Amino acid sequence: MNSGPSDDIEALITTMARLPGLGPRSARRIVLHLIRKRAGQMAQLASLLAGVAESARECLTCGNVTQSDICPICQDPARANGEICVVTDVADLWALERGRAFKGRYHVLGGSLSALDEIGPEDLRIPQLIARIADEHVTEVILALAATVEGQTTAHYIAEALEPSGVTVTGLAQGVPIGGELDYLDDGTITAALRARRKI
Amino acid sequence: MNSGPSDDIEALITTMARLPGLGPRSARRIVLHLIRKRAGQMAQLASLLAGVAESARECLTCGNVTQSDICPICQDPARANGEICVVTDVADLWALERGRAFKGRYHVLGGSLSALDEIGPEDLRIPQLIARIADEHVTEVILALAATVEGQTTAHYIAEALEPSGVTVTGLAQGVPIGGELDYLDDGTITAALRARRKI
Ligand SMILES: [Zn+2]
Ligand SMILES: [Zn+2]
Repeated sequence: MNSGPSDDIEALITTMARLPGLGPRSARRIVLHLIRKRAGQMAQLASLLAGVAESARECLTCGNVTQSDICPICQDPARANGEICVVTDVADLWALERGRAFKGRYHVLGGSLSALDEIGPEDLRIPQLIARIADEHVTEVILALAATVEGQTTAHYIAEALEPSGVTVTGLAQGVPIGGELDYLDDGTITAALRARRKI
Repeated sequence: MNSGPSDDIEALITTMARLPGLGPRSARRIVLHLIRKRAGQMAQLASLLAGVAESARECLTCGNVTQSDICPICQDPARANGEICVVTDVADLWALERGRAFKGRYHVLGGSLSALDEIGPEDLRIPQLIARIADEHVTEVILALAATVEGQTTAHYIAEALEPSGVTVTGLAQGVPIGGELDYLDDGTITAALRARRKI
């Protein structure tokens, strides 16, 4: 008879093991850690997860994670400065917010163009970005995308798609290492790259 | 104005980031992943965590994680074969169960002796182990402890403490690499080490 974790613990480990960056072993370690501290941390984590699962959604305008239909950044009139910073992912938006250098609004693509993975412009909220240019009197679109092949392919696609609108399109310049994912950079590097942005 | 994650998402990230093997960046990635799949995975994870937080406890006899006062292994009469396998942690017990080679019962120490961390025998359920030798007609105690300094110090302490009882004390022999933690080994190695166990 094999008598490892009980069914509910096994289900918890299996679910955890599917999370990005985790696997069966790290999931087992986390679950055992939580069981040992169960008076507090596990119930707290469960209720935090349940709360966020209930309330979190995508901002209808920019794709940011939020608890209302429109996120606080899109609601804030002080951030309607004519600049939209385009990011791949909400994690990149958070990284830029930590840098505190950008005062405008965001547009979260939700991924990069990829012929291999069959991800086209419609999968990436690019049509919504084009619509915002006119609606929000945008003067500059900053493409804060990764310095990877996919990121730069996406940047060039967007720059071409925005050309008829006459909006200035810039990209993060110095500071983003080749092959570097934005979310891996320290906040100072990301801020410097933003300040030194160049016209594409 | 800095507008990163909302307060409840930030609290979730902070709590996740404290889990073993995680940090702020991996916690952010996991939380965003869960938010994207929120229809399913996040609520499911929350309810699994709440269920385990409610039901999981330590077996009063062996220290295994269980949902009743006494774990299924300690309740199973077929496993009262006179052998007790002493492990550092429940993760090691699970690793041995995956190997399916051990047919007896376990005793989970909950750590290793450490002068530096002021962890003594009373902190490790060693008195409870000594009590079990008489109560359960134990004939062999297998010390399945890590081949680290702390693991071997603990093994020698237990072997000496059990000497008056006359019980045979064995240890995992071949297959456990020097400095190796049990839970990192593949299941075949751990099974081979168990089969080739030697008297200490
Ligand atoms: Zn928004
Ligand atoms: Zn037990």
